[in-house]
Order: sequence, then structure tokens, then C-alpha cells
Amino acid sequence: MTFIQATKANPPTRPAVTTGPLPASTKVFRSGFLHPDIRVPMREIAVHPTAGEQPVTVYDSSGPYTDTASETQIEKGLPRVRASWIEARDDVTAYDGRHVKPADNGFVAGEQLTPEFPLRHRPLKARDGKAVTQLVYAKAGIITPEMEFVAIRENLGREQMRNTMARDGESFGAAIPDFVTPEFVRDEVARGRAIIPANINHPESEPMAIGRNFLVKINANIGNSAVSSSMAEEVDKMVWATRWGADTVMDLSTGRNIHNIREWIVRNSPVPIGTVPLYQALEKVKGIAEDLTWEVYRDTLIEQAEQGVDYFTIHAGVRLHYIPLTVNRVTGIVSRGGSIMAKWCLYHHKESFLYQHFEEICDICRAYDVSFSLGDGLRPGSVADANDAAQFAELETLGELTKIAWAKDCQVMIEGPGHVPMHKIKQNMDKQLAVCGEAPFYTLGPLTTDIAPGYDHITSGIGAAMIGWFGTAMLCYVTPKEHLGLPDRDDVKTGVITYKIAAHAADLAKGHPAAKIRDDALSRARFEFRWEDQFNLSLDPETARSLHDETLPKEAHKVAHFCSMCGPKFCSMRISHDIRAQTQKEGMAAMAEKFREGGDLYMPIEVASVATRR
Amino acid sequence: MTFIQATKANPPTRPAVTTGPLPASTKVFRSGFLHPDIRVPMREIAVHPTAGEQPVTVYDSSGPYTDTASETQIEKGLPRVRASWIEARDDVTAYDGRHVKPADNGFVAGEQLTPEFPLRHRPLKARDGKAVTQLVYAKAGIITPEMEFVAIRENLGREQMRNTMARDGESFGAAIPDFVTPEFVRDEVARGRAIIPANINHPESEPMAIGRNFLVKINANIGNSAVSSSMAEEVDKMVWATRWGADTVMDLSTGRNIHNIREWIVRNSPVPIGTVPLYQALEKVKGIAEDLTWEVYRDTLIEQAEQGVDYFTIHAGVRLHYIPLTVNRVTGIVSRGGSIMAKWCLYHHKESFLYQHFEEICDICRAYDVSFSLGDGLRPGSVADANDAAQFAELETLGELTKIAWAKDCQVMIEGPGHVPMHKIKQNMDKQLAVCGEAPFYTLGPLTTDIAPGYDHITSGIGAAMIGWFGTAMLCYVTPKEHLGLPDRDDVKTGVITYKIAAHAADLAKGHPAAKIRDDALSRARFEFRWEDQFNLSLDPETARSLHDETLPKEAHKVAHFCSMCGPKFCSMRISHDIRAQTQKEGMAAMAEKFREGGDLYMPIEVASVATRR
Repeated sequence: MTFIQATKANPPTRPAVTTGPLPASTKVFRSGFLHPDIRVPMREIAVHPTAGEQPVTVYDSSGPYTDTASETQIEKGLPRVRASWIEARDDVTAYDGRHVKPADNGFVAGEQLTPEFPLRHRPLKARDGKAVTQLVYAKAGIITPEMEFVAIRENLGREQMRNTMARDGESFGAAIPDFVTPEFVRDEVARGRAIIPANINHPESEPMAIGRNFLVKINANIGNSAVSSSMAEEVDKMVWATRWGADTVMDLSTGRNIHNIREWIVRNSPVPIGTVPLYQALEKVKGIAEDLTWEVYRDTLIEQAEQGVDYFTIHAGVRLHYIPLTVNRVTGIVSRGGSIMAKWCLYHHKESFLYQHFEEICDICRAYDVSFSLGDGLRPGSVADANDAAQFAELETLGELTKIAWAKDCQVMIEGPGHVPMHKIKQNMDKQLAVCGEAPFYTLGPLTTDIAPGYDHITSGIGAAMIGWFGTAMLCYVTPKEHLGLPDRDDVKTGVITYKIAAHAADLAKGHPAAKIRDDALSRARFEFRWEDQFNLSLDPETARSLHDETLPKEAHKVAHFCSMCGPKFCSMRISHDIRAQTQKEGMAAMAEKFREGGDLYMPIEVASVATRR
Repeated sequence: MTFIQATKANPPTRPAVTTGPLPASTKVFRSGFLHPDIRVPMREIAVHPTAGEQPVTVYDSSGPYTDTASETQIEKGLPRVRASWIEARDDVTAYDGRHVKPADNGFVAGEQLTPEFPLRHRPLKARDGKAVTQLVYAKAGIITPEMEFVAIRENLGREQMRNTMARDGESFGAAIPDFVTPEFVRDEVARGRAIIPANINHPESEPMAIGRNFLVKINANIGNSAVSSSMAEEVDKMVWATRWGADTVMDLSTGRNIHNIREWIVRNSPVPIGTVPLYQALEKVKGIAEDLTWEVYRDTLIEQAEQGVDYFTIHAGVRLHYIPLTVNRVTGIVSRGGSIMAKWCLYHHKESFLYQHFEEICDICRAYDVSFSLGDGLRPGSVADANDAAQFAELETLGELTKIAWAKDCQVMIEGPGHVPMHKIKQNMDKQLAVCGEAPFYTLGPLTTDIAPGYDHITSGIGAAMIGWFGTAMLCYVTPKEHLGLPDRDDVKTGVITYKIAAHAADLAKGHPAAKIRDDALSRARFEFRWEDQFNLSLDPETARSLHDETLPKEAHKVAHFCSMCGPKFCSMRISHDIRAQTQKEGMAAMAEKFREGGDLYMPIEVASVATRR
């Protein structure tokens, strides 16, 4: 693993990112049947030969950076894997595209200006006002390469499990299949129950699905602010986040150089990139919300659609007459986009231009296949404000907008809260499913208490696991820096791992047929004292190993049949092995018989060793 | 705050512990009505005068160490606050007590021997075979000082809230009162629904209750092992854990010097101390499980009861005929106590001596008021083994033992798992309530997935919050070191804060009438940019402050109306203030009218600032 930290003190001109495989891991590719040329990446984690087990296959969001056969160069961007698929559909046209203006980078110049990305690709857009969305193809019965890619990607391990394991879980009405077929993916997309964010101008991205009947996904937010961070840092964070499992990345930059930073990010991102276009639009009007216009906003949508942004957060549900509903809240409006729109609406005393121009926004999105992420501008910022009239009024409007977007063949997901105590979480999911026609839900946590700034990855990880179980399709991470500052590299990793835990716990509880494979493999490794396997199968092998080594650093201890919790003299798991060995020798039936008889049973047990306590 | 880290390299003869108040905090005491001499500690957190708000009162488990008026000396132990209450009941007698033997400290001598605690108090025990438990008094209708202490302690802030706030929560059949009276505490104890662990030989402890209708409590495990750590470290960890909110501490030492280390811990602990006596008994027979005898075990119970241990984990539910049920598990038996007993039972092919001598154990416990924590020796060690036949068979036995203990007037709680995926958590709670007659449940997590060693405080914090909500009375913490090593000081803090989050999230969701006070106070501070108040009201003010300062270190930024997430140009919460100010100026009715009319509304808003995003 190459690890070069990008620092503020010494910003490299060439962004340094972390590459190389995770421990004991190999990137493998599966090809398609309908589309034989597609290469779907997965990560195989090898286990020790003594286990006599196959490698464990896990989902791999990390792109070419972890592929030893691939040499990535940040200045060139990633291979454009989807370019030929898009071209083959014969419904797009290349054009010169919009001219980059000084406002796009916050009027910055000279040394302060982040260099342009070295290569420029002519943008594509739909021909003749057509929709070029995965939704329009799905409705037409077409299984795109993206859909087959997703089907293969989602199936990891299901093949071997199919006939060996009873389904076990509570999915609250989801329809998770035993096996994901390309047709199933098409059908879910056609129904609007899943989206495949896949802008035709981001052919570098590896297709993935967000939907209740697929694996629960997570998003990592990155982005600079007026106060801190650079392009190199943000590119590094994007690669770092996907390395640890981020399925999508949102670039929430609000400082200068927004256009150029985003270009570097998109060209190098193997995962879909989301943005909040309003942030850049606000920079173009120098931060004066009331100076925003539909024209500036529209121009920004096109700018970002041409760059390849895969989904837009659009706070079109913040309507003028909902704003008074927030006045008596404990924390008012805490969504940045929501408050910008509230300010605009109040200043002009007009209905939101996002709401009024929603169909035109759809027309832009359908021409590039930018998915909607309908923003929850009135989400609660404290447990006191959870599930209140403002929040649910907006949700109703998001449901209404979903239907408009679907009529325009646009892909849609819906953003959700926020701060919600546990007993109010399920109501959020149920209401969203009901009013938004099962469009995928995409929540920020929720945070289950307000009293732990510095630990909001945990306050929210609790809520995220629960709402993921209830049916949320993608969980937006929260880092330890929430409410306190912008996340750095370490915060990004902590946020991603915490949310991988939440998403996986949700998959297990929903009864996802492949989720348990990894848990069982790791637990077997634990039980058999295969320490290296235990580390390697974990979400964060580096941390697991280093915590173990704090007490027992020697290599010899990696094969020890004990750990530092109890020491070598007595280990609960060691004893279980003795019991099992004895059973195998005597036969289970004979052993049970003796137990019933109550006779003497001699067990030649050596002085043994110890592991988990109490 | 005095902070002297005890290190292994330079072990101090006088253990160094952290003392002094938390930021902006004052320890206050409330006196009793029935028992005017009791002084119930609480922590008041002051907020900035501009808020115009009363200090926020929070539960305080930290004992005299955070009291500026108290000078603690580790060599002397804490003041024996309960001594006069115990004496006044006139049912105990002091006696010479058991002689300390070399086996009690693992046959260690000379320099290796941890020094004896400098003071020795003659142990007390019940006179004439009586029970001296809180349960026997409660059944007799007596409200002890301990019960009134608990009532006052549990009430924090309820007085002011009583008439101002509607109850909001889902308690799954719990019976949390609007206001806790001493009689309510007595009644809960009498019914066996709550316990007050309060060994008559641990008069230093401040009474606390564990029960479904009280605040959810947390336990922190400490203790040395054959591989690492010293007395000084363990005393330091105990004080450190209670500083951050541990309601009880279990000393799970398994190495040498067990007797002497425990004496230092008990004499200096303001919270109840729990142990697993089997661990020490095993050391006395040099780690050979099959050499354990009832006599050695019995001797250990008396030794620890005389020292003042407040609750014993006793794995009396691991019966001989349940052991075959564990043979086909993925992770066998993972409880240390459970596996010791399994080994013993198999070796001798006899029923467990804990089960067979259970009534005699009760006779010891009732003479000192040691509470039972009936151990779940067959708890699942992986999600694959959750809720299986072995686990639930043992639980049935624990229910049977609960009734025996109650008949002997002993206080009882029941230990629970372990590793359980989310969809199987509630069944644990429901079954425990049903088969154990509503005796308090005390669970370890549960961990909701096996795949994140290094982050098991989080995998388990999710399960802990949920099962706490469902009705678990005390949550046993899990640290980041779980499965990997023994927790150090930092791990202890991370575990405690994570579990305070889980317990508080559970209190909120259950609708505890006082829980929300702190959330709302912190959220108001956040909304009003009172940064210092936001830090001070948080569970970990030091971490919150230091994360904030990573980006904006200057003191001036502590009053800034923005943070580093969005920078000074635009802040969502700042805008909400503008909206609110405008409403107040115009009047809500007039504002709403304008909204309906759709006329122009001029808002003189300054260029504003920014906080939470998306």
C-alpha cells in the first residue's frame, strides 16, 4: 500500500492518493452474460489454508486504485469504462459545452486558482430532447450494461449460499430476492424503487444501485469550505472514502475553486458524485441569497451536468408557506440549502424558484441522466424538532415532485433526517414509503440524541442502522466532526467505517441472503484463533491489527490460541474446541446418551488457554 | 483538573487518579425528607448568562473525585457514607472475617505482591441468619435511606419539567412515573423489578438503582489479566470510568494479586463493584477448571462479600445437559465463566456445583446484601449463534433461579447477550421479561454484526441503544479493544461515552420525562452559537472542544456565529434567527397573513454566516 498523506503545509501539485490492495485481498472481475464485455469488480479476501475455505467475496467500491493491474494517474483521470456503452445506445450527441467563467471558481485568479484538470472531454447530452436515463430504458424493457453490472455486483456470494441457507430476517415489506437477475434490476428501476446514478458525462463511474431491495449503501461527504482545505485534500479524501467503502461521494464544497476542484474529483471518481448545486449558485452571487435567480441556478445545473455530476440535491420542497412552521422550532432550519431557499422566498415573498421551475430542472436532468436527490431542507436539527409539521409538510411536497420527475423519466431518491429519537424513526420510513411511492430513501443518520458532539458518528450510527433496517436505501455518513468542523482524512475514515457497520447491520437484519457470509467467516476465524484472518476479514484490518498489537505485538501471538483479555491460562473458546473434539470422537448420539444416563464421562482435556469474558 | 497518567513504565506507589470538576460544572447535594442527613450528589452545568437559563442538572456517578470540597486520598479510601445507615438498622454484626491466604493473590510474594490496602475495616454480616438486603426491607414496607437516595437521584430536573411537557415516547410496557417517590423505589425493589446493589461492606458507595423504570445504567469492565496491567492502573481506570459516567464497575481481574487489587478498588469506588467470583476461584486452583470445588468457590464468595463486592456474576444456568446444545455453534461457548463451568461439568460428568448449591449461595448473598447478576454463560458469540436453543435453555434456568433467590430475599438481575443481529434483539428482551418475572436485564451490547473488530463499541452501541429502549436496565459497555485486547484508559473512556450515548438514546425513546432537558439545552446553545455551552453540556466537553479547535482554534471563534463547515459567509442557523426576529417584530399572525396574501415582504437581512449542511 502506498500511503502519501496530502498536507496543507505542503500541498502537492500532483494530488497524492492511497493505492494498493487491502490486506490479503485480490480484486477479481466477473463478466456479463447479456453484456460480455462488462467487468464487475469484487474483492476476494483469502483465508489461511488451514481453514479449508474459499475466499470471501465482498463488495468493492474502491475502483482501480486497489487494482494491482491498474496504474492510476490523477492527471489523466480514470478509464472511461462506460463510454462505449453510452455511445452504443446512439441517443447522445457531443457538443462544445458551456464556457467556464470566473464566477464558477468564485472569481479567484492567479496562484489562488486551482489548476484546471489537464484533459477536457466534450460533454454529451441527449439528442432531440430525448431522455437518456436508466429509468427510461428500464421502462422500455431494455436491460442496459449498467443494470447487468449492478445485478452481478449485488450478488456477491449469493450463488454459493442459495441452497445452503434459510433466509432469516425481517424486511418490513421489502422484496429482496434470493438471487438478483438483470431483469430484477431493470424492474426495480422501472418502478422507481431503485436508481442507478449514472450521468453520461461520468463514464469513469462503476454502476451501482440505490434501492430498498439491494444492499444498503453509504455516502461520504467531502468538500472544501471558505475556511479550509484544497483540491489535493479533497481528491485524496474521495479516494480514501471509497477505499473504505463509500458507495457514493458528495462534493459539498462551498469555498472558492468549486468548478475546478469538482472536475478533478469527478474525473478520478469510481463512484457516483453528488452535489448541492445551490451552493455553487450562491457563490456565483457572492453569497447573497436574495440575489439568486433561476437563470444563475439553471446555468449551474448545466455546468455540473456537463462535468458529470451523478445526482443533484435539490431543495424544491421548501415552499414559502412552510417557512412559518419552522419559527417555533428549537433549532429552526439547519439545512444549508433549506435556509438559503427560505431566505430567498422570504426576501422576495415568492414561491421557491426551484419548485416553480421543477419541470425545467427535470428537462435538464433527463438529458444527462442526473438523478434527483430531493433535499429535506426542513429536516429537524434537534430531537425536539423531529417529525414536526414543517418536516412532514415538506415530505408531502417531495412526494408530489417525485411523481413529476418520474413522468419526465428522471431517477429520484428522497433525502431524510436528521435528528430523530429512536421511537420516531420508523414513522419517517413509513411515511416516506407511503407519500413518495417507494422511491429510495436517503437519510442523514438520523442522530438519536443531541448531547454528544464529537461522537455524532455514533449517535447517528445507531439511527442509521435502524432506519437502514426499516428500508432506507442509502445512509449519508456523519463524522466525529459533525457540528464542530470540517472532516479531515481520519474523520472520513471513521465516518465511513461506522456507516459500513450500520449498513451491514441493516443488511443482516433485513435478511439479505449474502450478508451473513462475512460475519460467519470472521467468526469461524475468531473461534479457530486465525488472528490474521480475523483482521483481514474485518472492515478495517489496519485498526484491528494495531489494537491487537498494543498488548501482544509479537508475530508469534498471531497464531496464539489466546489473547490478552484472559491470557494464556484459560480460554473459553479453547474449551469449546475440546468439547467439540470429544463429541466428534464419541459421536454426538453417544455423548447425548451419556448425558441422559448421567454416568461418568472422562475427558482428557489439556490445561487450556482464554478469549472473551464475563 | 489534575491529570496524572499512571503508566506501566513508572508505576506510582500511590495510584494517581483524575480529580476536579468537569468544565462549568458544580457538584450540588440534595438532602432527603424521610432521611434528612442523606446528601444526594448531582452535577449542575452552568450556561452563559446571555441564555437566561437555569443550570442543567445531570446525573453524577463520579463520587467525591469531582467535588472541590472533598480531598480524596487513595490510601485512605472514600468516606463511608452509608456506615451509619447500616448501623442504624441494627441487624448486622462486625466480626474478624476470613484470613487472607496466599492463594487469594495467586500465590505471589515479595516485590510482585501488590501491597495490602493500608486500612482494614472489620467486615459486617447479618445477625442471626437474617437477610439484610434492600429487598427484604422493601418487602417489609421499609423505605431505607438508600431508597430515598435513589429516588432523589433519579428525579433530576423532573420537578421543573413536570407541568411543562407532554410525555413523549414508547416504553414497551415499562411504568416510568412522572415523578419518582421513595415509595415508588421501595415498591419497584419489592417487586424485584429493580435492585440497589449495596453490600453492607461497601459503605463508600452512593446508592443507585438498576431497573426498567429508572434511568438506563451502564457498567464498565476493568481488571488486570495474566498478561498485563497493575493495581494503580486499575484504580485509575475505575475513577476514570465513573468520571465519564459509569454507574457500576466490574473488576474482572484474572491475573495475580486479585485480592489486594480488589481491596484498593472497592475502598475507593463511589459506585457498586461487580465481580465474577469464579475467576478468582479458578486462580486458587491454579487454572485447572476440573479442580474447582464448591468449597473453594464458597470460600471465594465469602472473601469477596467481606470486601464489599456489590454484585456477583454467577453462571449457575450452565447445566450439564445444555452443553451438547453448543457443539454445533459457530463460536461454541464464549463466556469465560460459562466455559469454565462447562469444562467442570464435562470432566466430572456432574451437574454444575453452582446450580446444585444455589440456595447456599443465596444464604451468603442475603447476609451481606450482595446482588445476583445471573450470568449468561451460554450467550452467543456470533450472530450465527444468536437466540439459539442453548441460549434460551439457559435463560429459562435463570428464570427458575430468580424465583429461588427472591424467596431468599436476594436481589437479582439477569445477564444477556452478546452477539445478536437487530431483528433478533427484541425477542431477547421479551423472553427475559416473561421468564424472569421482570427482574432487571443487564446485557453486553449486543453486537449487531461480527465484522468490525476494533469498532465493537459501535457495533454493540447500536444494539445496546435498541435493547435499552426495549427495556434493558443496565448496559455493559464494550470497548474498541473487544476481541483484541484489554482496554486501556482511552478505550475505557470511549466505551463509557459510547454507552452513555446508548443509554441516553434509550431514555429519550422510552419517554423518560427528564431525559430531554439536556438535549434541548444543548440544542438551544447550538442554535444560539453559544459554543462554550455546547461543549460544556456535551457528554465529553474535552473532545468536543478539541475537535472544534482543530479548524478554528482562536478564542474569538468560540463566540463566532459560524463554524468551519460552511465558514462565515452563510449559516443556515443564522438565517433562522433572521426569520424568527422578523416574526417577532411583525407578529406571527401578521406574518402568516402576508404569506397567505402573497404580498411583498421586505426583510432587512445582513450578509450572514453557516453551520450544518446539505
